[in-house]
Amino acid sequence: MIKTELNAGFASLGGGYLFSETARRIRAFEAENPGKKVIRLGIGDVTLPLGKTVVDAMLRASAEMGERGTFRGYCPEAGYGFLRSAVARYYARRGVDVRPEEIFISDGAKSDCAAVPSLFGAAKVYIPDPVYPVYLDTNLLAGRETVSIPALPEDGFLPGPERCGGGPAVIYLCSPDNPTGAAYGREGLAAWVVHAINTGSVIIYDAAYEAYITEPGVPHTIYEIPGAKSCAVEINSLSKSAGFTGTRCGWSVFPRELGELGKMWARRQAASFNGVSYIVQRAAEAALSPAGLAESAKMAEYYLSNARLISRLLDEKGIFHTGGVNSPYIWMRCPDGCGSWEFFDRMLTSAGVAGTPGAGFGKYGEGFFRLTAFSAREDTETAVARLREFL
Amino acid sequence: MIKTELNAGFASLGGGYLFSETARRIRAFEAENPGKKVIRLGIGDVTLPLGKTVVDAMLRASAEMGERGTFRGYCPEAGYGFLRSAVARYYARRGVDVRPEEIFISDGAKSDCAAVPSLFGAAKVYIPDPVYPVYLDTNLLAGRETVSIPALPEDGFLPGPERCGGGPAVIYLCSPDNPTGAAYGREGLAAWVVHAINTGSVIIYDAAYEAYITEPGVPHTIYEIPGAKSCAVEINSLSKSAGFTGTRCGWSVFPRELGELGKMWARRQAASFNGVSYIVQRAAEAALSPAGLAESAKMAEYYLSNARLISRLLDEKGIFHTGGVNSPYIWMRCPDGCGSWEFFDRMLTSAGVAGTPGAGFGKYGEGFFRLTAFSAREDTETAVARLREFL
Repeated sequence: MIKTELNAGFASLGGGYLFSETARRIRAFEAENPGKKVIRLGIGDVTLPLGKTVVDAMLRASAEMGERGTFRGYCPEAGYGFLRSAVARYYARRGVDVRPEEIFISDGAKSDCAAVPSLFGAAKVYIPDPVYPVYLDTNLLAGRETVSIPALPEDGFLPGPERCGGGPAVIYLCSPDNPTGAAYGREGLAAWVVHAINTGSVIIYDAAYEAYITEPGVPHTIYEIPGAKSCAVEINSLSKSAGFTGTRCGWSVFPRELGELGKMWARRQAASFNGVSYIVQRAAEAALSPAGLAESAKMAEYYLSNARLISRLLDEKGIFHTGGVNSPYIWMRCPDGCGSWEFFDRMLTSAGVAGTPGAGFGKYGEGFFRLTAFSAREDTETAVARLREFL
Repeated sequence: MIKTELNAGFASLGGGYLFSETARRIRAFEAENPGKKVIRLGIGDVTLPLGKTVVDAMLRASAEMGERGTFRGYCPEAGYGFLRSAVARYYARRGVDVRPEEIFISDGAKSDCAAVPSLFGAAKVYIPDPVYPVYLDTNLLAGRETVSIPALPEDGFLPGPERCGGGPAVIYLCSPDNPTGAAYGREGLAAWVVHAINTGSVIIYDAAYEAYITEPGVPHTIYEIPGAKSCAVEINSLSKSAGFTGTRCGWSVFPRELGELGKMWARRQAASFNGVSYIVQRAAEAALSPAGLAESAKMAEYYLSNARLISRLLDEKGIFHTGGVNSPYIWMRCPDGCGSWEFFDRMLTSAGVAGTPGAGFGKYGEGFFRLTAFSAREDTETAVARLREFL
């Protein structure tokens, strides 16, 4: 028997990873009700296939890997120059100047959201609540001191820095937010940048949903805010924009204004990560080409149309909700003061529609519920019809 | 300016990641000597292209990702069932019974070698010296207490457990070893298993080079040793066997006899990793099919033939060396008591051949040097001819 002391952080986690638990309940329901098709508006997984530009790039790269002259072994730890340059051009479209050497390719935002805090020693880690559970879970596992930033309906789920203490800290922000779909405007985001600069804090800015922003005046990157380069690491991913959830590619930006941090990240990655598959990096490069971006824009528009169907139903029913604009997520208040796991079970068993309980995203998510717009149009329409009956 | 306390672990690391430093020196030499072609017998990177079976699988999977009916989003966090089953069958070929649910797919051995110790709390981490630098670097970054296990020429670079203290601990073993090429026989490995069981320790067994084992009686997996399932996590990778250094796929085995550990690992992975690209998992499945394994066996034979060319030269010159059999690495003593970085520079500038200084693998690697057999045959032959002059 292993007597080596176990990491006590595991005991502080909830029962299971949120989406493993909802998947388990859905499977159990389906097993007991073999005739019923559950429509999943739960996990934030895309359903549209990869664009032709991306697939063509993967086919070419796969063939290259089979020929001696074009085969590729280990890639540069921070990613190939061709992809780092493509990401830099992606920022340039927004008028943001980020150099290729400030960009570090990863296998997705989750990995980097989990690993970036390891650059720091003993530091308070501020985490919005409700939020993507990865921020909290991974910091609890690492034994860090976490402090929650309550995101409340009266603030439109966009808390300001007045909810943080004054010392230097690590601060997670996600905008457009998962799960609430709320997105900071320039002013709201600027307040965080000023706070970070004044306190010597670092912001870990998760921009994984920026491709869904439709409203003008909502920043696509934190670097649109003056001063942000001196206090923010930005993480992004192609999962939600180009449908890469099963292909896996993202990046982090460490602007040179962050001093040592970029070098430390390079060292950390070289020590514990062997880079992203060449084929995937070529796919990502294609996704960021003009043709690839046009394909992605169509996908976002498709999902946002789904979101409008759901939002309209909730408006019709007079149910308070956020998101759906600038975001593939709709965050609704559970009717009649219902608890969010109870609402999950009721909606699953009565309507055959699965969502995600707000409580799974944090204490302040209790009483709310997340629906996603990633299903096929026809499934979304069926779900809306079922929910019209149910709600 | 960021005032958040930085991770002090970075200060305890060497100047740069070993292979970044050797690459830097090679680039500098090439820039100063534009006519000279340096032959790289340094980094352990394969050069033969992927097998046809593997490429065909990637082409099929890429096409699937472009069609709505066959598109795949997020994969199960621990990997697809088809690949976990293929790995289980791979173990079954050796008469080792490992269930698919005990196998966790990863993007390579480096990631898992770095992350598995995070399952443990305050524990001594025993690390052979010399060894693959990732074990030490990542544990220093995590602030763990590391203790080196000297691997000495008089033990054939295969230290026994008498060099470890008695309490429960985390113990890294790599066999066939990187960098020395030495491989434990059944008896040597059994001594470690007995030690781990007696002390309640856990072994992290890196089997990334097992495909190069040619001698009978050398275990391909630690689970060939009775009792190992109750004390060892095994990590393997397709990088060196199937040429996946630029494709990225590996796995870890957490036998159910390890109790909670497998569940903890599943939770850790779900919280901080989104799985391996579908295309890559299909490639890995193909690599583990009978046709894929036949292709891999040919690659190993090619590289081992290179190793024999190098070994024969060292025999000819009367230079002490290990490896080359059961391993793509040849570990030689630097002639004339030369320091290993000095030897690196001399060999690079005089012979135009790059290797890896033993000191880069640990204090006890000083005075030794690693050559790898992964180059093309003609390059290896040229390198051997140059070294025949130089040595």
